[in-house]
Amino acid sequence: MSKWENYLEENRDRFADELLDFIRIPSISALPEHTGDVLRAAEWVANRMQNAGIEGVRILPTGGHPVVYGEWLHAPDKPTVLIYGHFDVQPVDPVDLWTHPPFEPTLVDGRLFARGASDDKGNMLIPILAVEALLKGEGAPPVNLKFCFEGQEEIGSPQMPGFMSEHKELLACDLAVSADGGQWSETEPAILLSIRGVCSLQIDVKGASTDLHSGTYGGTIQNPIHALVRLLDSMRSPEGEILVEGFYDAVIDLPEAEVAEVARVPFEETEYLADLGLNEIFGEPGYSTLERAWIRPTLEVNGIWGGFQGEGIKTVLPNEAHAKITCRLVANQDPYHIAELVSTHVINNAPPGVEVSVGPLSMVGKPFVIPPDHPGNQAARAILKELYGQEPYYHRTGGSIPICGLFLEHLNAYTVSFAFGLRDEKAHAPNEFFRLSSFDLGQTAYCKLLYRLAEVKP
Amino acid sequence: MSKWENYLEENRDRFADELLDFIRIPSISALPEHTGDVLRAAEWVANRMQNAGIEGVRILPTGGHPVVYGEWLHAPDKPTVLIYGHFDVQPVDPVDLWTHPPFEPTLVDGRLFARGASDDKGNMLIPILAVEALLKGEGAPPVNLKFCFEGQEEIGSPQMPGFMSEHKELLACDLAVSADGGQWSETEPAILLSIRGVCSLQIDVKGASTDLHSGTYGGTIQNPIHALVRLLDSMRSPEGEILVEGFYDAVIDLPEAEVAEVARVPFEETEYLADLGLNEIFGEPGYSTLERAWIRPTLEVNGIWGGFQGEGIKTVLPNEAHAKITCRLVANQDPYHIAELVSTHVINNAPPGVEVSVGPLSMVGKPFVIPPDHPGNQAARAILKELYGQEPYYHRTGGSIPICGLFLEHLNAYTVSFAFGLRDEKAHAPNEFFRLSSFDLGQTAYCKLLYRLAEVKP
Repeated sequence: MSKWENYLEENRDRFADELLDFIRIPSISALPEHTGDVLRAAEWVANRMQNAGIEGVRILPTGGHPVVYGEWLHAPDKPTVLIYGHFDVQPVDPVDLWTHPPFEPTLVDGRLFARGASDDKGNMLIPILAVEALLKGEGAPPVNLKFCFEGQEEIGSPQMPGFMSEHKELLACDLAVSADGGQWSETEPAILLSIRGVCSLQIDVKGASTDLHSGTYGGTIQNPIHALVRLLDSMRSPEGEILVEGFYDAVIDLPEAEVAEVARVPFEETEYLADLGLNEIFGEPGYSTLERAWIRPTLEVNGIWGGFQGEGIKTVLPNEAHAKITCRLVANQDPYHIAELVSTHVINNAPPGVEVSVGPLSMVGKPFVIPPDHPGNQAARAILKELYGQEPYYHRTGGSIPICGLFLEHLNAYTVSFAFGLRDEKAHAPNEFFRLSSFDLGQTAYCKLLYRLAEVKP
Repeated sequence: MSKWENYLEENRDRFADELLDFIRIPSISALPEHTGDVLRAAEWVANRMQNAGIEGVRILPTGGHPVVYGEWLHAPDKPTVLIYGHFDVQPVDPVDLWTHPPFEPTLVDGRLFARGASDDKGNMLIPILAVEALLKGEGAPPVNLKFCFEGQEEIGSPQMPGFMSEHKELLACDLAVSADGGQWSETEPAILLSIRGVCSLQIDVKGASTDLHSGTYGGTIQNPIHALVRLLDSMRSPEGEILVEGFYDAVIDLPEAEVAEVARVPFEETEYLADLGLNEIFGEPGYSTLERAWIRPTLEVNGIWGGFQGEGIKTVLPNEAHAKITCRLVANQDPYHIAELVSTHVINNAPPGVEVSVGPLSMVGKPFVIPPDHPGNQAARAILKELYGQEPYYHRTGGSIPICGLFLEHLNAYTVSFAFGLRDEKAHAPNEFFRLSSFDLGQTAYCKLLYRLAEVKP
């Protein structure tokens, strides 16, 4: 057994206790009343990094929730690896669905129940502990290291584009490794190849200067809800194809080999539907469900409202109606260009008798793709195969993680996803949990990964 | 000058003071915290009727807000006239837009500002005072009289169908006269010929068992908002025609002479649009705005909601979406049948991948039509012509007043609308007012009308 393995073994209980401490901080980035808690979590992370022996640790302002930075740069001629994670967590509503209070971590059969246990506190603590084992066990890690832990991932990282553009030199690296993510199952490893981009818009339809009586005025003027409904309906075919002109133009079809890798990922439609409480699948014709989720773009209404929403009926002809839309994007769609195409569609199809306006919302992110044979991926693949005893799946995510695109844009560095959350761990939902077995395995995996990355040419 | 005219003249100031007392009671039927005030208003009305010399006065329970009944039945061989009005009022929100507190009646230049001044307290007090003048001035009114004042008109008279069916004999009459309504302007009289019916429905679209992440799941399952939007869009053509199968089948086209009467009513599109703050008219092709408002049926969404409605964006793929719909109906459309046609349309056009349900809401009312040459109308016409010096317009209303249909159904009696509100008096809005000149004129008009009706064969 190597010294770092010994160190991990000897400190296992302490590490688990520390994770409990970390999780107890209710660092909900979405709620202003928890801003102080997000800062407390940043301080906890900074202290823990310092105790691990990481150097230059500092809390950096962003204009919003802060970033914690640290480094260890004493491996000349070796690559510099930037490790990423986030210490903010999702809100806990509806809190009455939690079996245990969300910020009182409770261990049941090796599963640690608490908000943030899996997403991302358990996962982001792993590389800090692994680096401590390398520093204190071996005296030095095998590569140069930088750390960038953010406190605003769960709200879409609004200040991170500005932060990244400002700190290009500080964060310069050869490769980023993200400790935010997971494996396919307890026995099946996976490597993440792409993340969808996103753009977001709001449509506002305005009619008369006030709400009107739907008896007196009904039939004589345009109803803003009808106008909005027509507009939204014009954007997608009944089958789910997007009808916005030019929407698919920039989409690059995946090479056949990569499409085959998507098909290799286990997927049971019956199980998928049962989990969601649905009877029927739905989506763009000609694609499988995983293809629709991972390699095809979307246009989804996230919210719609107008007029009376209470009990019973109010005979109002409302004077406004609104909708929020997000599009998920794949390579090479540009989120700003797509937002423009959607806006143009809205303006060109605006029904008569109302004023229609459309504008971008703050959520925006480029799609991210890493080649399957990228040296970082190949290193991760080798370690996962060794630990799990089988080839990882090449999977993708339908969600959008802006940071990977930002690392590529500002640091010219790809991000390898290397994390140990599992899909049943209820991230973002009540009764989130993390497996302590994953917590232990992850520490070993990170140590091995860093040795492997030391062999990659910077 | 006749004795009733003298009586009105001598008591003018007292009557105005009494109207102020009546208006001070905040009898808002829509708000549970004002239930006691609605009852207080009923008691005020009952006392006032008794003081006028009306007999058999009583407050009758309905299961909701009560009805005040009274009678005077000592004119053998003369018709029995049922006088209708309501003592409940609309809510006052937004209260900060009122120049004077809504329940502190304030007289400015002959205009009495207060909630309920015009709709309907000022108007419903008029026939009570007129009858007092006939009783105390002349000793007896020229016809038999019954009075039915309700306390739930502003909430759609939910208990009045049951009440009417229970009190057919008590309320039996030859003709009803409604003191809820108005004239075209200070110098232009008008007779109301029809009231649209109404039916109301709610559509509920259900998707997955919980809200989902629109990145992870977007594109792979049906979005309940998109499904709802498609359904609603399928109900109306872009031009505003209703596409529900069978919707127009029962509509009786008006005789040409009556269409010509609609065209005779003054209407300025530019003014109409300017009042509403709109640039463009909209509605069913082939009809004028007044025809669309009065003699054509409608289907209007009154409210829609689903997903996220806050600031910014939340990447939710919501698991439900809802809409409320009302249809305004014209003769001979049956509201229950139309609700069924709309429900059938919803079920037949339900998009795949979601559960769609549809059900009626409580608001329902038959369309009401009174023939222009009905003897009650002819009596009203003669009096209005005498008082205003010009022929009344034959107008109609796009709204729905369930009581007229109920009188026809249960009492086999038509309702003549005979009231003195004007269209600029902001009924239902802040700064409602009533002209004291209308209050005085109305008392004279009612006395004259009752003499005229005494000549109509029962």
